[in-house]
Amino acid sequence: MGITTRQFEAMQQRVGGQRRRPAPALEVVPQPAPSVSGLIILGIDPSLRGTGYGVIRMLRPAAVALGQGTIRCPARWSRSRCLAEIATVVRTVIECHQPTVCVVEGLFYAQNLQTALIMGEARGAALVAAAQAGLEICEIAPRKVKQAMVGYGAAQKFAVARMVQRLLNLPEAPEPDAADALALALTHAQECARPSLTPLKRL
Amino acid sequence: MGITTRQFEAMQQRVGGQRRRPAPALEVVPQPAPSVSGLIILGIDPSLRGTGYGVIRMLRPAAVALGQGTIRCPARWSRSRCLAEIATVVRTVIECHQPTVCVVEGLFYAQNLQTALIMGEARGAALVAAAQAGLEICEIAPRKVKQAMVGYGAAQKFAVARMVQRLLNLPEAPEPDAADALALALTHAQECARPSLTPLKRL
Repeated sequence: MGITTRQFEAMQQRVGGQRRRPAPALEVVPQPAPSVSGLIILGIDPSLRGTGYGVIRMLRPAAVALGQGTIRCPARWSRSRCLAEIATVVRTVIECHQPTVCVVEGLFYAQNLQTALIMGEARGAALVAAAQAGLEICEIAPRKVKQAMVGYGAAQKFAVARMVQRLLNLPEAPEPDAADALALALTHAQECARPSLTPLKRL
Repeated sequence: MGITTRQFEAMQQRVGGQRRRPAPALEVVPQPAPSVSGLIILGIDPSLRGTGYGVIRMLRPAAVALGQGTIRCPARWSRSRCLAEIATVVRTVIECHQPTVCVVEGLFYAQNLQTALIMGEARGAALVAAAQAGLEICEIAPRKVKQAMVGYGAAQKFAVARMVQRLLNLPEAPEPDAADALALALTHAQECARPSLTPLKRL
């Protein structure tokens, strides 16, 4: 079933900070902008040991998930081996599903500089694969993703995963990292549908 | 002429925190450990807009520079374009000179988390290229490099560049980023020559 247009409108209202009105008995159903339809979007949630990825295709009336997963790198692997693995898997996912856009998390918090450096390395590895494949790359703040998905900027991971499952009509909730990646892709699709309100932040 | 064995010994003493003795009229000249001879080392000093790289080959009695340069990414380029460029150029340098070891700066300081993230991305891009080419990857703290090159952990960039020029017998001092990269490679060669004193930190 994926995203219905009504769900899409509700997501737009949440990001806009407006309260949801009760749905009228007869409503004029707005369609996503034509540019979104057919668009294949890759969402990536990079981290050294567990990078989530998710690919969706925007179709009417709903988006469908083409692929998703977590790039696991065991603790015994060296950092450089993890980085190579992240870049290799992201490149394979791109070759397999042929997305035209890649979305990663934007604003970013880390406990300390060393953590930020390591997270940056993982991001760099993923972005190299996407940039070398010629994808357009955008970033979205994590808070905005949660707000768009669950209506609450500090929503917990499982709530996002459940909403992603519902919107994409998946048999079960995706793993947390993959769910975050799919949520990034879904939020980007929503932003594309109304470019005048929130300009995309390109990387 | 590159590094002579006496210079090599002096560098070792500096890192060991010992005062240099006056050179005796007749001295027993220690040779670098056999494993270092012939070794081709790639040093990388990654940053988003100006990544330095330098490749040296350890020969007796001196090391020679095989290649060096700075990967410049203009301010108008997107971050993702810069990352792709860094990875592409590093891969080309590796294909050209066939090093077996890659050395990057280890301990690391940044003004804030955002800067650390961006520097991490640049590092990640460079490391992906090195790791995918199968190179062994090590890191050395910047302070250690300066100490080995100039004998002073807080040495200025130009002093490192002048010493690199001298050790590698270059016609002129390398650009600062390339000089830092060559200094990393030279310091690594020195560490390899005495593995029991300072174990290598692999990445």
